[in-house]
Amino acid sequence: MKTYVNPERESWPEILKRPVQSTEALENTVREIFEAVKEEGDQAVKEFTKRFDGVRLSKVRLSPEACAKLASRCPETLSRAIDLAYENIYKFHLAQKGTGVRVTTRPGVECWSEKKAIEKVGIYIPGGTAPLLSTVLMLGIPAQIAGCREIVLCSPPDKKGELHPAICYAALKCGVTTVCRVGGVQAIAGLTLGTEEIPAVYKIFGPGNQYVTQAKQWATRLGVSIDMPAGPSELMVVADHTADPEFMAADLLSQAEHGTDSQVVLLTDQAETGQEILSALDDQLSRLPRKDIAKEAIRHSRLVVLPKVSDMVDMVNMYAPEHLIICHRNEDIFISELRNAGSVFLGNYSPESAGDYASGTNHTLPTNGYARQYSGVNLDSFLKSITFQRLDEEGIQNIGPAIEVMAEAEGLQAHRNAVTVRLNALADKRILAERS
Amino acid sequence: MKTYVNPERESWPEILKRPVQSTEALENTVREIFEAVKEEGDQAVKEFTKRFDGVRLSKVRLSPEACAKLASRCPETLSRAIDLAYENIYKFHLAQKGTGVRVTTRPGVECWSEKKAIEKVGIYIPGGTAPLLSTVLMLGIPAQIAGCREIVLCSPPDKKGELHPAICYAALKCGVTTVCRVGGVQAIAGLTLGTEEIPAVYKIFGPGNQYVTQAKQWATRLGVSIDMPAGPSELMVVADHTADPEFMAADLLSQAEHGTDSQVVLLTDQAETGQEILSALDDQLSRLPRKDIAKEAIRHSRLVVLPKVSDMVDMVNMYAPEHLIICHRNEDIFISELRNAGSVFLGNYSPESAGDYASGTNHTLPTNGYARQYSGVNLDSFLKSITFQRLDEEGIQNIGPAIEVMAEAEGLQAHRNAVTVRLNALADKRILAERS
Repeated sequence: MKTYVNPERESWPEILKRPVQSTEALENTVREIFEAVKEEGDQAVKEFTKRFDGVRLSKVRLSPEACAKLASRCPETLSRAIDLAYENIYKFHLAQKGTGVRVTTRPGVECWSEKKAIEKVGIYIPGGTAPLLSTVLMLGIPAQIAGCREIVLCSPPDKKGELHPAICYAALKCGVTTVCRVGGVQAIAGLTLGTEEIPAVYKIFGPGNQYVTQAKQWATRLGVSIDMPAGPSELMVVADHTADPEFMAADLLSQAEHGTDSQVVLLTDQAETGQEILSALDDQLSRLPRKDIAKEAIRHSRLVVLPKVSDMVDMVNMYAPEHLIICHRNEDIFISELRNAGSVFLGNYSPESAGDYASGTNHTLPTNGYARQYSGVNLDSFLKSITFQRLDEEGIQNIGPAIEVMAEAEGLQAHRNAVTVRLNALADKRILAERS
Repeated sequence: MKTYVNPERESWPEILKRPVQSTEALENTVREIFEAVKEEGDQAVKEFTKRFDGVRLSKVRLSPEACAKLASRCPETLSRAIDLAYENIYKFHLAQKGTGVRVTTRPGVECWSEKKAIEKVGIYIPGGTAPLLSTVLMLGIPAQIAGCREIVLCSPPDKKGELHPAICYAALKCGVTTVCRVGGVQAIAGLTLGTEEIPAVYKIFGPGNQYVTQAKQWATRLGVSIDMPAGPSELMVVADHTADPEFMAADLLSQAEHGTDSQVVLLTDQAETGQEILSALDDQLSRLPRKDIAKEAIRHSRLVVLPKVSDMVDMVNMYAPEHLIICHRNEDIFISELRNAGSVFLGNYSPESAGDYASGTNHTLPTNGYARQYSGVNLDSFLKSITFQRLDEEGIQNIGPAIEVMAEAEGLQAHRNAVTVRLNALADKRILAERS
């Protein structure tokens, strides 16, 4: 881990630099797969599944019966763990349900908004080294609460052409309406374009490797929206002597095992705390099964010592970490001054793992600095807001003249006229009423 | 206007087809301008302004004094109209301010969220045929309420190198922090990359021509986010005999004058209503200053007669109109069954112009079918949500074992270990306490 003691502010951007991502090189591959899926539909999807996942499928879609049968094979301990996580995530996301707003902006002018579910959403669940069953919950639960009519889950099949029982168990709990055994670019192409077996959706959620990431970007060119741009996972730990070094080391390693491109930054105002955590980290690292990945990730990670708390706050906001652990005597300052972060974990007993699985918050978070402008996935990610307005005769008379002036200034006479015809009709009506 | 009476459902997608947009051809131009701005900064910005706007600027940024001076030249009637619109828009967007949520998902596990302003935002205001002063309000007001620290407005200068006084007046009211006299791709490039005079921002808002649209798409590749994908403006009117034909015709024309690619759809269950509106439309059209644009837009617009209200509802949802006027005896059915629309105008006295300028709702809305998954611009567009969690000793003991099981199932041992070290430490602590 590279160590920086009291670095000059000018050097901060360099210290906090993230590994450069470029997926543009993959664009041709992605384009070709999309074109093939567009031309040949499920035929192409199956071809690519054979090529990339090494398995020949007769059907891409898993029947509800097959899904239920697989789900029943989920080990009891794992099902109960999923149940607990489900409840917590459900509670936190249900609390996000808001009523729309309703305002009478002027007498006779009523404006309001209503949130409606996005009708069709796609959920991508990577397979790869392990089935990301937790991501099924993180995306499926808010979709379920929002009331999305179609929730289509795509996940790559294993060598036998099956999905992990826990994926099916979680999918059933979340009310997923369609489960497809397909991963990679071909899954995203299917969700974007629609095939006989894969329904087309309006918005695609979920993590994935660089091909999936590039495919999601490609999907946005074709009228589908996505949760957020993806990047490698990252964690910043802010610690002082109040932090337990063994706990902090374990947290840094939990982030590092995600992949060699994961990045962790340890920020402290007490050099000795930094050293204690580093030595606990070395100690734990040797015992990890995924130690090669973690070691590589730790290699390009950073320990920064900044003596002033206000500087530490500035560095946190400059980095805009996806995950932020704060175990510091001045926790309250960090919270109140925090401007950019995805999800925050406070105190010694709040490991990042808690948010990854079961505390209730969402683990689909903005990385790569996107915490400056993106929220993590939340209930609103599955909703959109429609605004309404109703003006009565009084209302149009109250604001109509202002509209006429502004429309005229913008050179839009037909906009003006839409008000004028109404004001004229009301004037005529008044005159008639006065005469009678 | 093409008329379809009781068309088969299979033909609906064809009837509702929007003009095809392709901005990919502009990609090279956009790329070149971005590269030039990256290399040469303001120098390049000024070059392009000379070339495209025909004006030589010494400074791109307008000083606060110059802006105030220009604002003071805004005609009194227009200033008062802007004041009225400002108040209404402010009220409706202020009402959208929510408190975050806070939930104890399990004893000892507290989760909450807080909304924070996006620190730096860019607002693009087109010039062209007329200064879009209303858009300054629609984007500036929510940015102001959100508390964005930097609000950078870019708008192309006129032939004298100046901005319209009303743009400056509205910008001052909204607390815009920087005003730049620059439009087109070079403005978006400046906001994305930053120059000496144009501050770089995290999110760019605002309408524009196809070059600006393509430039905003390009910006998303460089880590900046945008409000939503753009497309030509559109309006669907649902009417029956309760609608005043003259009013509806005026509304259809107000949409049509936006541009030749604007699209309007008139949907009714009463053929005679359709004919009445069409003849009122012909009548008004001839008197419009922008009649050539409107005529062309009306040419590829549609009148659809569907006898069943349930079919009408389905067609509205299939089209997902940006603007939807409902003037129909079954208004309540349309509202309760509505799933996809940007903004809705109810009754005879709610012209689209009202929402465009002054009712209080936002006029930056999803078009081109994006109302299926996007909201219009609202307060949340300028905020992001950060989640927090705090577990105490009881909390980690309540959910820790479930996390261990799930992390293990996902093959992430370091995630599991981050919990295990804490549970072990607590077990040791308990044993020590029992002994003493």
